[in-house]
Amino acid sequence: MPRRPVADHRRAVADHLSAVRTVGRVRLADALGLLLAEPVESAVALPPFDNSAMDGFAVRTAEVAPGTALPVSARIPAGTAAAPLKPGTAAAIMTGAPLPEGADAVIPVEESAESASGVVFTATPRLGAFIRHRGSDTEPGRRLVDAGTRLAPHHLGALAAAGIGEVAVVTGPRIAVLSTGSELVPAGEPLAPGQIYESNSTLLAALVRANGGDVVRVDTTDDDGGFEGALDTACAEADLVLTTGGVSAGEHEPVRELLSGTDSSWFGAVAMQPGGPQGLAQHGGTPVVCLPGNPVSVLVSFEVFLRPVLRALVGADPLAPMTGRVDRPVSSVAGKTQFLRGLRTDDAGTVRILGGPSSHLIATAGRADVLVEVDTAITELTPDLEVPLWPLTT
Amino acid sequence: MPRRPVADHRRAVADHLSAVRTVGRVRLADALGLLLAEPVESAVALPPFDNSAMDGFAVRTAEVAPGTALPVSARIPAGTAAAPLKPGTAAAIMTGAPLPEGADAVIPVEESAESASGVVFTATPRLGAFIRHRGSDTEPGRRLVDAGTRLAPHHLGALAAAGIGEVAVVTGPRIAVLSTGSELVPAGEPLAPGQIYESNSTLLAALVRANGGDVVRVDTTDDDGGFEGALDTACAEADLVLTTGGVSAGEHEPVRELLSGTDSSWFGAVAMQPGGPQGLAQHGGTPVVCLPGNPVSVLVSFEVFLRPVLRALVGADPLAPMTGRVDRPVSSVAGKTQFLRGLRTDDAGTVRILGGPSSHLIATAGRADVLVEVDTAITELTPDLEVPLWPLTT
Repeated sequence: MPRRPVADHRRAVADHLSAVRTVGRVRLADALGLLLAEPVESAVALPPFDNSAMDGFAVRTAEVAPGTALPVSARIPAGTAAAPLKPGTAAAIMTGAPLPEGADAVIPVEESAESASGVVFTATPRLGAFIRHRGSDTEPGRRLVDAGTRLAPHHLGALAAAGIGEVAVVTGPRIAVLSTGSELVPAGEPLAPGQIYESNSTLLAALVRANGGDVVRVDTTDDDGGFEGALDTACAEADLVLTTGGVSAGEHEPVRELLSGTDSSWFGAVAMQPGGPQGLAQHGGTPVVCLPGNPVSVLVSFEVFLRPVLRALVGADPLAPMTGRVDRPVSSVAGKTQFLRGLRTDDAGTVRILGGPSSHLIATAGRADVLVEVDTAITELTPDLEVPLWPLTT
Repeated sequence: MPRRPVADHRRAVADHLSAVRTVGRVRLADALGLLLAEPVESAVALPPFDNSAMDGFAVRTAEVAPGTALPVSARIPAGTAAAPLKPGTAAAIMTGAPLPEGADAVIPVEESAESASGVVFTATPRLGAFIRHRGSDTEPGRRLVDAGTRLAPHHLGALAAAGIGEVAVVTGPRIAVLSTGSELVPAGEPLAPGQIYESNSTLLAALVRANGGDVVRVDTTDDDGGFEGALDTACAEADLVLTTGGVSAGEHEPVRELLSGTDSSWFGAVAMQPGGPQGLAQHGGTPVVCLPGNPVSVLVSFEVFLRPVLRALVGADPLAPMTGRVDRPVSSVAGKTQFLRGLRTDDAGTVRILGGPSSHLIATAGRADVLVEVDTAITELTPDLEVPLWPLTT
């Protein structure tokens, strides 16, 4: 079977994810940085009632001149209802407390002198002074935040003030990450012969999060029967499941064995290195994207196939295209798009290639800052050729 | 008492937070986007053992020529130990499985034909072909990631592969947010007379998160005695506590009443609008920054006093300075730095002022994208004056 070109598989992945849910309701406190999916209007007036802008005294302006003394008939803290203001009196009032009916101004405490017998004012209040009027900030039905707004703290503050507890947002799809392989051991345990530390789930979960996805489950299974149950659980919880390992042509390939052979599945080789063996499937109605098991293959597969689609799904800006040139010739394999790991050594885009093409060199990849794309037709990449760079960023 | 200039209080806040903890150990899976505080070296060789790069057959090259048939003496899946290769035989081997002692090459399954009696090879293997050698990716003691690296997914992948389970990072300080006010009601409940929806905790927690802080607690208390217990809890859990409300000169000011009057505390008025009443204190050894209670005051106070310090603490880039001009004259109050809310209407920095100066206009602030700083000396801000803009962003 001929290898599928990279661009073809990229389109297939995009199609495969086209129905993934990306709008959901979240608690307002969890909405920071997300795109608002629907406009939000206020259901209430803000302020909900006339209230005092200052600590002071609520009065009737007609009853106050400089030197006026009035008995204090009430004390109105914030958070309480206020009785009407008795004629010929003042009411002590706190910032934010409701203005009593009949009062038409607030005199700040700094312009008054209170004693046991009452309060004396040193200034004449302006009608309406230091009153925040009901509805002066917003009215019921008025737009608070537009659809498509990336929610910043001040948007959340405005929505919270209007009593909005949850909002419809473009969310990262809920994504489960499922790493397979009998050789995998969690960090902190000693390695027995033949074992390696499990790194794909950490790597892939971070890649998903860095591009706006919502990682709802991270799991690891061996190659000996644990996979199907773990996949059932993952598919029940998530909008999209990403697996690593178990997709090539060997004897212990649980992912391929379980998921291939249905109408909606595709398993095969993409003409790229690393990351050749790839798979797409549905399981329990949930799309599954199956990546190979070597860590560098996971990194490259995500960058090439998933990152652009995921960013588009969540409304994140695409990464700006970059190009560069290698600092010395490097050979490449004919017929496959190669993604080498490189480190930019200057601002002009000169790149030093780190390590060889092999897909197990994940520690080496940790020193890189770009992937260097080498076209299928190139067998010797020389410094005179300008080639695409894929930045490895948070 | 004269009002404290904005710049003086900004320095006081920076001093107050100078001892806040910003290095801690976190699980590797939680380290995405954080600055690595210490270099990390590998404790292991990667790969930890010679292993196969392909599904195929481990052989002794000296025993294989095109057409050679060998019995298959073992099958080596990944994750197991391998017995030495019996002379005159091949061992079926999976990708990543350990190379058996004695083997010196792997022949890919594509270059073989296996039957019940053995395997026939169609090519001669090169010595060392398709073997990933122990230590070819990294060696014990070799640097994996440098201190000061902002951890991207590929760094986490490299560290996980070396069995690193947690790392020392510059973390956002653990911050508790404590909103006070008897008038505050959570979203979803009906408003009784005199009550408003609590929004400061949502706003402030989002501001903290957006600038790299780690929000560990969000709480709301009334003005009638609940504050001290809530503050004790917050100070026990957090490296820094931010309060809102209860700091002005009124009758129900629990924050100021509890925290002022000690050697390390300062409560007073800053020459700014909104956001005049401010406080700094220590409680149980934890620094507390006390902001006023109106939502726009919280927003402005955070942007002016806390955002620059917090970003510096976590190693985030400072926001790029911006300037602009108002589209029509607007009056300002003498002797106070005013921070109006504005919306940029073009790329040249023309700003339309939204709403008045009052600090309760949080819904209006939700339509803004900048704060417009107006100097203490300016009483009429005209379009010919270039003034600082503070972007309101995620």
